[in-house]
Amino acid sequence: MASSTISCNATDLIPLLSGNATSAAAAAEFICQRFETVSGKFTDAAYAIDNTYLLFSAYLVFSMQLGFAMLCAGSVRAKNTMNIMLTNVIDAAAGGLFYYLFGFAFAYGAPSNGFIGKHMFGMSDFPKPSFDYPFFLYQWTFAIAAAGITSGSIAERTQFVAYLIYSSFLTGLVYPIVSHWFWSSDGWASPARTDNLLFQSGVIDFAGSGVVHMVGGIAGLWGALIEGPRIGRFEQRRTKPLTLRGHSATLVVLGTFLLWFGWYGFNPGSFAIIFKSYGTSPGSSFYGQWSAVGRTAVTTTLAGCTAALTTLFGKRLIDGYWNVTDVCNGLLGGFAAITSGCSVVEPWAAVICGFVAAWVLMGFNKLADRLKFDDPLEAAQLHGGCGAWGIIFTGLFADKTYVSEIYGGDPNRPFGLLMGGGGRLLAAHVVQILVIMGWVSVTMGTLFFVLHKLKLLRIPSEDEVAGMDPTSHGGLAYMYTEEEIKNGIMVRGVGVGREDDQVHGHVGVL
Amino acid sequence: MASSTISCNATDLIPLLSGNATSAAAAAEFICQRFETVSGKFTDAAYAIDNTYLLFSAYLVFSMQLGFAMLCAGSVRAKNTMNIMLTNVIDAAAGGLFYYLFGFAFAYGAPSNGFIGKHMFGMSDFPKPSFDYPFFLYQWTFAIAAAGITSGSIAERTQFVAYLIYSSFLTGLVYPIVSHWFWSSDGWASPARTDNLLFQSGVIDFAGSGVVHMVGGIAGLWGALIEGPRIGRFEQRRTKPLTLRGHSATLVVLGTFLLWFGWYGFNPGSFAIIFKSYGTSPGSSFYGQWSAVGRTAVTTTLAGCTAALTTLFGKRLIDGYWNVTDVCNGLLGGFAAITSGCSVVEPWAAVICGFVAAWVLMGFNKLADRLKFDDPLEAAQLHGGCGAWGIIFTGLFADKTYVSEIYGGDPNRPFGLLMGGGGRLLAAHVVQILVIMGWVSVTMGTLFFVLHKLKLLRIPSEDEVAGMDPTSHGGLAYMYTEEEIKNGIMVRGVGVGREDDQVHGHVGVL
Amino acid sequence: MASSTISCNATDLIPLLSGNATSAAAAAEFICQRFETVSGKFTDAAYAIDNTYLLFSAYLVFSMQLGFAMLCAGSVRAKNTMNIMLTNVIDAAAGGLFYYLFGFAFAYGAPSNGFIGKHMFGMSDFPKPSFDYPFFLYQWTFAIAAAGITSGSIAERTQFVAYLIYSSFLTGLVYPIVSHWFWSSDGWASPARTDNLLFQSGVIDFAGSGVVHMVGGIAGLWGALIEGPRIGRFEQRRTKPLTLRGHSATLVVLGTFLLWFGWYGFNPGSFAIIFKSYGTSPGSSFYGQWSAVGRTAVTTTLAGCTAALTTLFGKRLIDGYWNVTDVCNGLLGGFAAITSGCSVVEPWAAVICGFVAAWVLMGFNKLADRLKFDDPLEAAQLHGGCGAWGIIFTGLFADKTYVSEIYGGDPNRPFGLLMGGGGRLLAAHVVQILVIMGWVSVTMGTLFFVLHKLKLLRIPSEDEVAGMDPTSHGGLAYMYTEEEIKNGIMVRGVGVGREDDQVHGHVGVL
Repeated sequence: MASSTISCNATDLIPLLSGNATSAAAAAEFICQRFETVSGKFTDAAYAIDNTYLLFSAYLVFSMQLGFAMLCAGSVRAKNTMNIMLTNVIDAAAGGLFYYLFGFAFAYGAPSNGFIGKHMFGMSDFPKPSFDYPFFLYQWTFAIAAAGITSGSIAERTQFVAYLIYSSFLTGLVYPIVSHWFWSSDGWASPARTDNLLFQSGVIDFAGSGVVHMVGGIAGLWGALIEGPRIGRFEQRRTKPLTLRGHSATLVVLGTFLLWFGWYGFNPGSFAIIFKSYGTSPGSSFYGQWSAVGRTAVTTTLAGCTAALTTLFGKRLIDGYWNVTDVCNGLLGGFAAITSGCSVVEPWAAVICGFVAAWVLMGFNKLADRLKFDDPLEAAQLHGGCGAWGIIFTGLFADKTYVSEIYGGDPNRPFGLLMGGGGRLLAAHVVQILVIMGWVSVTMGTLFFVLHKLKLLRIPSEDEVAGMDPTSHGGLAYMYTEEEIKNGIMVRGVGVGREDDQVHGHVGVL
Repeated sequence: MASSTISCNATDLIPLLSGNATSAAAAAEFICQRFETVSGKFTDAAYAIDNTYLLFSAYLVFSMQLGFAMLCAGSVRAKNTMNIMLTNVIDAAAGGLFYYLFGFAFAYGAPSNGFIGKHMFGMSDFPKPSFDYPFFLYQWTFAIAAAGITSGSIAERTQFVAYLIYSSFLTGLVYPIVSHWFWSSDGWASPARTDNLLFQSGVIDFAGSGVVHMVGGIAGLWGALIEGPRIGRFEQRRTKPLTLRGHSATLVVLGTFLLWFGWYGFNPGSFAIIFKSYGTSPGSSFYGQWSAVGRTAVTTTLAGCTAALTTLFGKRLIDGYWNVTDVCNGLLGGFAAITSGCSVVEPWAAVICGFVAAWVLMGFNKLADRLKFDDPLEAAQLHGGCGAWGIIFTGLFADKTYVSEIYGGDPNRPFGLLMGGGGRLLAAHVVQILVIMGWVSVTMGTLFFVLHKLKLLRIPSEDEVAGMDPTSHGGLAYMYTEEEIKNGIMVRGVGVGREDDQVHGHVGVL
Repeated sequence: MASSTISCNATDLIPLLSGNATSAAAAAEFICQRFETVSGKFTDAAYAIDNTYLLFSAYLVFSMQLGFAMLCAGSVRAKNTMNIMLTNVIDAAAGGLFYYLFGFAFAYGAPSNGFIGKHMFGMSDFPKPSFDYPFFLYQWTFAIAAAGITSGSIAERTQFVAYLIYSSFLTGLVYPIVSHWFWSSDGWASPARTDNLLFQSGVIDFAGSGVVHMVGGIAGLWGALIEGPRIGRFEQRRTKPLTLRGHSATLVVLGTFLLWFGWYGFNPGSFAIIFKSYGTSPGSSFYGQWSAVGRTAVTTTLAGCTAALTTLFGKRLIDGYWNVTDVCNGLLGGFAAITSGCSVVEPWAAVICGFVAAWVLMGFNKLADRLKFDDPLEAAQLHGGCGAWGIIFTGLFADKTYVSEIYGGDPNRPFGLLMGGGGRLLAAHVVQILVIMGWVSVTMGTLFFVLHKLKLLRIPSEDEVAGMDPTSHGGLAYMYTEEEIKNGIMVRGVGVGREDDQVHGHVGVL
């Protein structure tokens, strides 16, 4: 029966087609076997194509971790560079282990109770039809992104031990549970549920403005709030906050472009499958998921571009000069916002999304200054604020056809309010914002508070002034000239391990 | 009729094959429906495969924008780093909007008059069979590359407003029209026209030595010429020009490697389609467009490698040392040259292409010094000069078989002069060079001249000496040590916005 | 016969199915032709899919060259940055030419004598069914990686001429021969041989812990040993070696992340083919080479992550602080180790692999300090030591099913000792380690010794103290502030070419 060949030898088939009942049976068998084989080959081809697309998307998303590392490094002062880069490396590394051991199981271990998954710990039973290795890799790259966001908010003043604890907790538990709610097919708010859809709609958070960006941003909000602003940022006798500029705009731009590059894995990659026609029959349309993947790349691009330009001119008006780092942040704010609706909105709507995102970010930054809230990377404002705007945006602008093509189900399912789709999608999205804020506040807020009470959260003031690199990481990140070494400018405070040998004795030959 | 299944149940087919006329009709219908479905599935598979290939190629080309940003940043002095990086970010961002609104329409809005496209403004009617979203994304990444080239030529002395104006004009109008001529199927010089082929050949500028590199380079030539050299570059009492070294060779190497990486999207990606056999029937040959894509990656690699090695030894002879930044430029010159013919030449010819390109660049650089022409990135020499050489090279070395496989049409269509293909391809290519020089000179030359007359082009001398970052962009890109902050070395001249707070008052805690 | 259409017109088929012998022949022909065409289309689709996967994997591996360049640059002192980056650029460039001219022929020019290939010099006869252009490109990216490893070991003290010689020799001859032994289907130790398998098993060095990493590492070992440690590294009156810190931890992290990114091309890409089902018939299983490719990405990730975390805590215990550059090296050690067995081990085994790799690296580093062996990048320890551990690891943990799926042949072929597969695989792997050590020692050790005797290996002491950039490469890589230019700090010793103009005369306007 399962003859796996398409090869067809006419001399075998001829006698079978000669018209009597016996041979007819054989002929039908002969022909049908081959069609079965053809059908199976297409199944195999689909796996090969879809997994190629998914794996390379995962690699792109992974490159965002490098982008985060460079963006963060450039945005802090030179004396804290080693610290922030180490947190980004450890995010990826610890995230890899924790997500392997239990994060993935919490997120996708169906059947679940709707709140938390409970199968496939340590990748047991891998692979399955719906969970192959490339899918795990792709989801891991998302998990580590959330922790990366938070590390920006609490940069330059957090103990490394606190970092290890919150990062593991976020990647291994808090984030996976949120992703289960919205992305696992049996999560309580999933738009792919077969029954009990939230507001008959479920939440369309396609690539994670809420699941990833708001989670990371709200976690950062609590961390930054509980440990307070960096020394010198807000002083009583001053009317304006002091900008504690990062040490390298070049690294900021490098990181931003890498994040942009990686976002093409993050958003267009979230389809997971590209070989899927939207036509009524195979070959009946040039239009399929490949088009939707491309459209998602276009909407992502346009939202970021518009946000960048809006910030360029907005900041020029406000501050009087052309600011490159703010443009970079505006760009990223546009991306964070479009991430929710990227697959279900028209390109023109993406332009609106980015335009508003830029003002949301500028507004939240103004507010943060007023409230004396200090987030060195603007991560809470950017990923939390623009992420939330993106969730609302999707509730307003999701297109009926696109929602139907991608999420299927009831052809009359809710879509964007301003597109005539009623308010139910928007209502579900408001619920998403509230639920994420609540869940992350309860879990991460509590964690940061406990760490604070245990004196494990913030570093001592003298270490903060001296910098975390010399006090906790064995020395500064840079050493450019012999002058610097002789004067001890860049190695001051290095008092551990072998490194202090450098200062005394042998600088002449360095 | 359009039954979309390949599944074949023998019990259904048996009675149909029993040999009478009625059942024969049903049997034929039964069998043929399934073949139709199979055929349709292949069509869908081709879309999925080709768009995966095209999208990831587009992402690679996008990464060149990051490469440009880093190359440019490293090639200018530290005081102008913010400025040049901002121009690269804005290239991509403004390019995204303008190319979406009308650039793509001018380039590919067929049917056209041969000079300029006129459909699909704002992506209206997207997607169509021949214009899907991934294709738009891919073309956008090319459009922003051209503007990036020009920004190098006019670095370190151009007003940011002038930059915004020329960049929009180039990406939105000048470049799209050129790409229409050579790449749109009804462009007047397209090699894919069905009739009225220029010299019965059309121009084979496969990935754009002319369309992208010469356009960007000639625009830069006029910009640099009209605003003149940087202060200090050429002084009367000196016999030799003063090299105003860039501030970071590391960034130059980083940018060069990123451009190399991205070029694998630029050249091999320009096929747009990879699932195409060159055999006489399906499966009859292992050789197809996938081989041609790979060969293009190989020719690209070999041209760049040869140019780099030639420059290494050439500059060693001339200057007496092993120069890394010149080797990087030589490498890029080899790439710019092979970009035209990469798909239609043999690997050995690519070696020749790169060898000559290195000398073309060294020659033009020598000439530039003589003529007191100052281009901080050597962009006019590199992209203009080596780009022009590449166009000639293709006219000399294009292979008959490859031209026929890729461009089809008349099997006796012209190919490279030295390959026995006559002079018509070369003639068409000379026309291409002249036409691009003429068009870009008229448009961009005029624009730069008008900006010059309106005093919008060049910054004041005092700003140039102080640097553009402190005077226009809110401060310098780097802040490494407290010494620098205290001495004000790196924040001198910062007089805008919140940044001046840094100098006065609180440096002790920075 | 070779009708290349699947289109099926029922009106043509009807008369053929009417049941007489003549028409039956035509009907059979009609139907079979279409199945042949379908079969051929699948062959074409497989080429398109597999080459897309292979080409983009090659691009990723290429990006590792950028990673090496940045890692090396950051790990050396500022005064040697230009030198080390140039070596990385030239590795890629010279490697491109040499591998094209004869390296590939030595590696894959079958039929061979088992020791060295001897066909396809200069890509003659390209493409062939088993050797298409994308395969060449992929192999070239591996060849240049080996030379990149060695350059780290001999950094900061090697003449550039020596570098050019050993790099060409390694990429063009030494490495290709080793890769022939283990990877060419008729190499003497290949696991894909049809007969005379080494220990009835052959060596499973899937992506090259031995072929690439040990080759590069052992070559580096001899280079570093013969030319001796850098000045100041080990002094008699000191008890501990002096750490000559690299000038930029940021570049180290950037390089490490880029290598991680590129490793997803290196390991998962080494399958070369992704469209291959492991089921008994097409479509019978969701499980296929696409799963194995994904699993390889997962094992690679887990090994690196575990090694990074192990190093983090290990170094915290040993040195008392959280060290970012050591964590980066640990991570890379984990990758170098898993590269051999990545495709044939379970994820949990990869965790073990990484854990041990971290201690192997820390141990070898301790030993190197004891023996006064100086390798600025720890390349011999990392790529040599962890590479060797990875080869042993595969002999211990290779999974029966995975070995069988990937390497085929005898279903009872040997697999990992600890998995119950006997000791023959492990024995073959011990042979691999010994043979690589022997071969590389004889070839590269001899070469370095000859260069040493000819006074071509090490630079003069005064150049080493002043730095290689000012003495051999035209100046330092960085120039940040006017102060530096005025004081001559960063241009001291520049005495060649046009660059010395910078020091005298015009610094005021720089």
